[in-house]
Amino acid sequence: MESRVILRHKTHSVNINTTTVGSQHPIVIQSMTDTNTADIDATANQIISLADAGSEIVRITVDNIEAAQAIPQIKNLLLKRGYNTPLVGCFHYNGHTLLTEVSECAEALDKYRINPGNVGVGNKKDKNFESIIKIAIKNNKPVRIGVNWGSLDQELLAKMMDDAVRLGFDNDEVIVNAMVESALSSATRAIDIGLATDKIIISAKVSQIPLLKRIYMELTRRSNYALHLGLTEAGMGIQGIVSSAAALSSLLQIGIGDTIRASITPAPGEARTNEVSVCKEVLQSLGLRRFTPSIISCPGCGRTKSDAFKTLTLETNKLIQNFLLENKDKYPDIESLKIAVMGCIVNGPGESKHADIGISLPGKGEDDIAVVFIDGEKIHTLKGNIFESFKEILLNYVERRFSTHRIIS
Amino acid sequence: MESRVILRHKTHSVNINTTTVGSQHPIVIQSMTDTNTADIDATANQIISLADAGSEIVRITVDNIEAAQAIPQIKNLLLKRGYNTPLVGCFHYNGHTLLTEVSECAEALDKYRINPGNVGVGNKKDKNFESIIKIAIKNNKPVRIGVNWGSLDQELLAKMMDDAVRLGFDNDEVIVNAMVESALSSATRAIDIGLATDKIIISAKVSQIPLLKRIYMELTRRSNYALHLGLTEAGMGIQGIVSSAAALSSLLQIGIGDTIRASITPAPGEARTNEVSVCKEVLQSLGLRRFTPSIISCPGCGRTKSDAFKTLTLETNKLIQNFLLENKDKYPDIESLKIAVMGCIVNGPGESKHADIGISLPGKGEDDIAVVFIDGEKIHTLKGNIFESFKEILLNYVERRFSTHRIIS
Repeated sequence: MESRVILRHKTHSVNINTTTVGSQHPIVIQSMTDTNTADIDATANQIISLADAGSEIVRITVDNIEAAQAIPQIKNLLLKRGYNTPLVGCFHYNGHTLLTEVSECAEALDKYRINPGNVGVGNKKDKNFESIIKIAIKNNKPVRIGVNWGSLDQELLAKMMDDAVRLGFDNDEVIVNAMVESALSSATRAIDIGLATDKIIISAKVSQIPLLKRIYMELTRRSNYALHLGLTEAGMGIQGIVSSAAALSSLLQIGIGDTIRASITPAPGEARTNEVSVCKEVLQSLGLRRFTPSIISCPGCGRTKSDAFKTLTLETNKLIQNFLLENKDKYPDIESLKIAVMGCIVNGPGESKHADIGISLPGKGEDDIAVVFIDGEKIHTLKGNIFESFKEILLNYVERRFSTHRIIS
Repeated sequence: MESRVILRHKTHSVNINTTTVGSQHPIVIQSMTDTNTADIDATANQIISLADAGSEIVRITVDNIEAAQAIPQIKNLLLKRGYNTPLVGCFHYNGHTLLTEVSECAEALDKYRINPGNVGVGNKKDKNFESIIKIAIKNNKPVRIGVNWGSLDQELLAKMMDDAVRLGFDNDEVIVNAMVESALSSATRAIDIGLATDKIIISAKVSQIPLLKRIYMELTRRSNYALHLGLTEAGMGIQGIVSSAAALSSLLQIGIGDTIRASITPAPGEARTNEVSVCKEVLQSLGLRRFTPSIISCPGCGRTKSDAFKTLTLETNKLIQNFLLENKDKYPDIESLKIAVMGCIVNGPGESKHADIGISLPGKGEDDIAVVFIDGEKIHTLKGNIFESFKEILLNYVERRFSTHRIIS
């Protein structure tokens, strides 16, 4: 029978200011801003909303001098507002120039992300890469070597294509080998320049799950660098959420991944923070971390009074979210709470008993009576305004069990 | 290196009218109605919307005489409208009575779902179970033995709890063993009564992913029944989608699961068909089946003109969905199409080249020029009304490559 605990692939611990990434530490959630970095207020506000949603590291693009100059000001603004979320600068093409010319940016950032595919071409490549690594060493900052299939080092790929033809590899094997080689050879180069092993995080993202799995399994076979995990260009809507969840969970379940990001395209008007919610749900659903009370609810069927059931489930979800927003600090360990909201007698009493607190609604055609179970016992029978009564019972239970002011029996 | 093809756990092929479930066949998507079954029009309409969304089997609760009598009429209405989607009757407590008393219902259904946990208590249990199995044999129908943690056979659980204390098992082991035992012993009983092995589908659903994995791995270790896979009571919103995707994909990736359902609670007003969309995205993202062209898109960042990029991605998604709804039959194999919509130069040209057709937008502060790649070559440079131009190019490409009227070169 499968082991109950997921054994993490052993990786080095990398300190990123207030957070540590590596197999000895909980899996860290990160995200990225999509504001214009030079717009200091907009960027700081988005970082705060991402941090409030649960992002423990936030990446920011640093694409020109104005963006680089904005970084220390964003950092100060965040500190003034009580946020010390680690900030990662995302560099492409001109990172060596920006980090050299704006030393306050190099100091203010907590990590640099370099893409080996676009750090420079020809003989500039090694020189530019070396500049950035030396700045990281000088400032005692960790570096993510972030390879991406969309911007893979074209010289390396061409060379590997030649080898592949000779060795009879298929296309997928070439991709896997090229991605892994780009990441690991860049890491070796950084170490040769003087960067410590525990200052390196690696990622190698593609947009197809089977390939992503092979790449990360190969990375873990060949190294012990801390791993940043994500499916790149996951897309929009249900596609983006499902493919990110499937990709992240498939590797996390075999112990691979120390920090994760969901690269979801928001629809116009959609909250940027949804990518953080997806990461939290992935970790919570796999039992790797807990962030909020879990609310299980059935899908409803022809037995349920669908509207009443859906509304009660939604209201309970909202109640918990709003309660947490306002009160989380007063209720330590409240994220361990398990709630069940069930639509009929088939699985309702059973699941309600298994939860800390559960409600089983009457099905269609039945009397308007709902049964509430607490710690496995049937305690209340509700009639009339079911949600208001359930809300009161639920909040009383939370107060009794989780409040810092509770009387310990 | 991991094999590219997912090797399916070998299971029997079970015919369900027009569909076959088993490891020799593509993984089948199913869903369930939440209308009042006795409301024939509402139920038929929801079945049609689920079938149109991609549900290849639809389950309906049959909870009383009115519901049972409605089944043949629903079936006829569907056939009249051109839908022969296999229908599964979901029975709890009174299935033996309903199937006996309404023989037209037993004939019209394409499969019966029995829950061993509530088929009856005490000495009624075996008798009721036998009645249903005999009706299935007489009507040549397959049966799903659907165990659910919320309604697990309480007598069996009590017995296993006693054994567990004696053997020193922990709680999770008891759950796994009791779920598997309930499913497999019921299947054995059905076979003893005379049901063929290839008339049996098994499910054993819980609401926690690590437990679900253990249960299904144990089922595959001990049997070769066709397996219906799902996480029960997955919940609402992002939680429901993420936990379903993580659960289904974790088992599908190791070859377990012949038919799947996502048990998501819809919010009031949310389309019931979302559970079907989740299943399709799971299968497509794992490379197990293809349903629609894939549209990869980046999450956007500080480099992208966020609004323009998000709008173009959304419009492209809508264009493809609407086009498919109206034209799918005229464009065979269009689901193999790969589109990329990318927000800037970092991964834009690379991903666009890898796609069949891709567009790489200008980043913020850059000239209003987008580059379109077709089959890996940079073909167009768009200025001005980018979406309208891209739409024209995309539809031309589809016409040229997929239309049944295309000139084969």
